[in-house]
Amino acid sequence: MKTVRDYIRTIPDFPEKGVMFRDVTTLFGNARGFRMAVDQLLHPYAGLRFDKVVALDARGFILGGAVAHQLSAGFVPIRKKGKLPFATLEEEYQLEYGQAVVEIHEDAIEPGEKVLLVDDLLATGGTAAAGIRLIERLGGEIIGCAFIIDLPDLGGRARLEELGMSVHALCSFEGE
Amino acid sequence: MKTVRDYIRTIPDFPEKGVMFRDVTTLFGNARGFRMAVDQLLHPYAGLRFDKVVALDARGFILGGAVAHQLSAGFVPIRKKGKLPFATLEEEYQLEYGQAVVEIHEDAIEPGEKVLLVDDLLATGGTAAAGIRLIERLGGEIIGCAFIIDLPDLGGRARLEELGMSVHALCSFEGE
Repeated sequence: MKTVRDYIRTIPDFPEKGVMFRDVTTLFGNARGFRMAVDQLLHPYAGLRFDKVVALDARGFILGGAVAHQLSAGFVPIRKKGKLPFATLEEEYQLEYGQAVVEIHEDAIEPGEKVLLVDDLLATGGTAAAGIRLIERLGGEIIGCAFIIDLPDLGGRARLEELGMSVHALCSFEGE
Repeated sequence: MKTVRDYIRTIPDFPEKGVMFRDVTTLFGNARGFRMAVDQLLHPYAGLRFDKVVALDARGFILGGAVAHQLSAGFVPIRKKGKLPFATLEEEYQLEYGQAVVEIHEDAIEPGEKVLLVDDLLATGGTAAAGIRLIERLGGEIIGCAFIIDLPDLGGRARLEELGMSVHALCSFEGE
């Protein structure tokens, strides 16, 4: 019986030499795999009520849409700068070389709303940490941060846990 | 009782002067609105079986993820050139000035699979038509093309219908 991890395809040297890219399109493209991923992602939160599912641009939207629908919650996108049409809050985060900026609509979350943050991949946690700051600036209460894949060598889980987050990931790839 | 259309926010002059931008984040962000949108999007296809839901980068992913999950189908992304890690097929389409290229993984759909194409917005239909060509090159059988918003003044519906597609949209904005 295939696990979520078994459905993920590894592509060497994408987007650049030396990187082992973990491709979730083969997981999402398989009806059983996709359903299993959503079910397992939500397993720790059974019985909890969420107002909003927040997901990160762009692969996170696929998972976030499914999760929000399954939870009967609203869906909120965090996007790269310049994509959201209404008034936004911004947060910078570090890339390997330079910075990037993500945004959230300033009216996307109301104070006290219960939020689940989801993305396909937890690497350094830079984007997720920026997302957490945005949600908290709007007064959202983050119940959990859920990912398909954790790359523990890159330290993202430790970083989010230092921010007080509860982190859930379905599988990990180490030292590969 | 609010309709799907009522949840959509209009933002004048985004991304440029003179454009009335139809913002679906207020629809997706509302739990009832999002659920209603997915339900109504699938209404014409009740009882049909789909193998794959194909959605367009990036807002289409939100809706596509929810729809694929609801249908217990696989999810397939069509992305702007350079984002997909595995071997792809490409199609060009016209922008107002110049061209753009979208891609699909060459193994994303198997011949004969039944496909629903979804996106938030049908404008000129250029991206959707490129998506249709990609799906058909892989041998997918497109059962329907479903959108939240139709902008009939821009001719997208007519264009897709000329390609033999069955087009479903939840609401339209005309001459505004």
